[in-house]
Amino acid sequence: MAKIKVQIENSPYDVIIGKHSFSKLTAEIKKRNIPKNLFCVVDEKVYKLYRKEILQLKTKNRETTIFRLPASEQSKDLTSIQKIYSRLLKEKYGRDTTIIAIGGGVIGDVAGFAAATYMRGVQLIQVPTTLLAAVDSSIGGKTGVNFFDTKNIIGAFYQPNFVLVDTAFFNTLPKEEILSGLGEIIKYAFLTNEKLFAYLNKNINEVFALNPYVIRKLVSESIMFKGNVVAEDEKESGLRKILNLGHTFGHGIEVEQDYKLKHGAAVIVGIASSVFLSRRIGLITEELFQKYISILIQTKDWIKIESANLNKIYKIMQRDKKNRLGEIRLVLIKDVGKLLLDVTAGKREILFALENGIKLFR
Amino acid sequence: MAKIKVQIENSPYDVIIGKHSFSKLTAEIKKRNIPKNLFCVVDEKVYKLYRKEILQLKTKNRETTIFRLPASEQSKDLTSIQKIYSRLLKEKYGRDTTIIAIGGGVIGDVAGFAAATYMRGVQLIQVPTTLLAAVDSSIGGKTGVNFFDTKNIIGAFYQPNFVLVDTAFFNTLPKEEILSGLGEIIKYAFLTNEKLFAYLNKNINEVFALNPYVIRKLVSESIMFKGNVVAEDEKESGLRKILNLGHTFGHGIEVEQDYKLKHGAAVIVGIASSVFLSRRIGLITEELFQKYISILIQTKDWIKIESANLNKIYKIMQRDKKNRLGEIRLVLIKDVGKLLLDVTAGKREILFALENGIKLFR
Repeated sequence: MAKIKVQIENSPYDVIIGKHSFSKLTAEIKKRNIPKNLFCVVDEKVYKLYRKEILQLKTKNRETTIFRLPASEQSKDLTSIQKIYSRLLKEKYGRDTTIIAIGGGVIGDVAGFAAATYMRGVQLIQVPTTLLAAVDSSIGGKTGVNFFDTKNIIGAFYQPNFVLVDTAFFNTLPKEEILSGLGEIIKYAFLTNEKLFAYLNKNINEVFALNPYVIRKLVSESIMFKGNVVAEDEKESGLRKILNLGHTFGHGIEVEQDYKLKHGAAVIVGIASSVFLSRRIGLITEELFQKYISILIQTKDWIKIESANLNKIYKIMQRDKKNRLGEIRLVLIKDVGKLLLDVTAGKREILFALENGIKLFR
Repeated sequence: MAKIKVQIENSPYDVIIGKHSFSKLTAEIKKRNIPKNLFCVVDEKVYKLYRKEILQLKTKNRETTIFRLPASEQSKDLTSIQKIYSRLLKEKYGRDTTIIAIGGGVIGDVAGFAAATYMRGVQLIQVPTTLLAAVDSSIGGKTGVNFFDTKNIIGAFYQPNFVLVDTAFFNTLPKEEILSGLGEIIKYAFLTNEKLFAYLNKNINEVFALNPYVIRKLVSESIMFKGNVVAEDEKESGLRKILNLGHTFGHGIEVEQDYKLKHGAAVIVGIASSVFLSRRIGLITEELFQKYISILIQTKDWIKIESANLNKIYKIMQRDKKNRLGEIRLVLIKDVGKLLLDVTAGKREILFALENGIKLFR
């Protein structure tokens, strides 16, 4: 097992990465001074596939509740949060509770927000079971839910006690889920350096094949990069914004497509739109443009957008948290590892970028 | 105007105290580097009484929304929180928002929790308009709402940018609201020292008469004491527990009486119950017992409990956040300024204390 330290001020924590590391969860809890009354919020699908392993968390010496939740974007709302509160109360969980999120991003966000707000905060362990959650949402302490049409608008910054990534969970993921994680990994390749960009460009098929060496390398590099960024800027007041590359476009597309497109896939289309915008406003040469599009286009067979209402996407983008009163702010690419933050763009440019980004995947 | 600094690590803040200090609110915001898009959550009653003053917060140069909320314990729930979210979204408030809570404890708790969770946290200013909120809930960063029968079970620790106490608001408070603030002030007298205890013991009638000198002194002393405690223990892992003197009993009584008894009045009955328990288990002499009861009994004319279901109170107490799985933990008095934390007591002792504490006010 590998360990990566996320150096958040006041509350640094470990990310433990390894195949079959889930069997070490109880031992990792014991090592740390955290409450042994466990409340596990588990993705229903993950429970069905890994029932035996999950039930091993129940022992005679402690309270353990297994709370199953369907992990659709629709269940990422205050209703699910209230169901968790009710169960916690019904089973008399006190402040000495550790909530464990076992599942993908939805489970991590929902369980994390419940942990942040039940009794003004109890302990939290993230066990991401999807590639996407492992490289993205489980790291950095963002928790939250959607409210009506607006994604992640309600939430809290709340750091886990530790994160445990068991890459064996990825073996049962459908291809579209692998693609979703890949979307974020591509983003990290743009953000990190040429070396990672070139490595990923050559190995995208190995990701789909779940080559254990490639997966472990890419997951570790992504987590290390994200860990360093959030350690420097926990509450997203500056540097952390670079992680939003492709996300303002991506969120808009994801919501407009009614979540039929997975998050990471929407991010890929979002990055493509950003690349078109970067070229349009003269940030990048034609050569760089071709290079960037060529990595994105490798995922083309896996992404399908039949039709899209560009004006609707634009309106959804205006509601993004990162904007001040309707003005859209974007992260744009100048070069691999060189990003521009808080770029504002007019409606015409945004629509142009969306149209071309989406057309790539039609 | 007087200023007290609450030295919370990473986010110290000022408490500004003065008669008619509300007129300085805009100037105080300007002095600080905080967003000028204001969203004011205002107690409906306060709005009616101080409409002119509150509307002066609206200027041409910024967004200002006045959101009115009835301030009953019943409106301290997730439904009110969701109404605030909806309005914030509808009026396109972004991260650069300052929420101002203008009202008593309910408004401060609800607006504070909304500020803690809207877009994962926006700025917050507390303007307590009741004596109770001024000396207690506006200081220390506890925010939250009730969930079904359980008080304050959902929430967050979230510090305001600053607190502004305008003692002129107290002039329009009904007597029972003054009593409610007095309940917490009596608690501080028990916690602080003999000098404050003796001063209050002599001046309780001056509190009811709203003698400006007495009010200002007691408010300042209370805020200073609470500020020091929460600065040392922001998240209630140790010292801060002393602030719960009378509160475990008090909450139980308050809920069982369906909030017909105001919070501070319930705390007075709760402290009385604690004093009975302290004597029963031999913590205090008969002489101290008489001394403590005599200050509490000065409020007797203002508190009326017709009947109470002691077993129901006991059950509600078991659900208190501070307890581990049903075990009741109390703060008990050894002497003025000397408290015992985390005292556990059996059902029989608890019922004895409740019965006698309540009987005092029948």
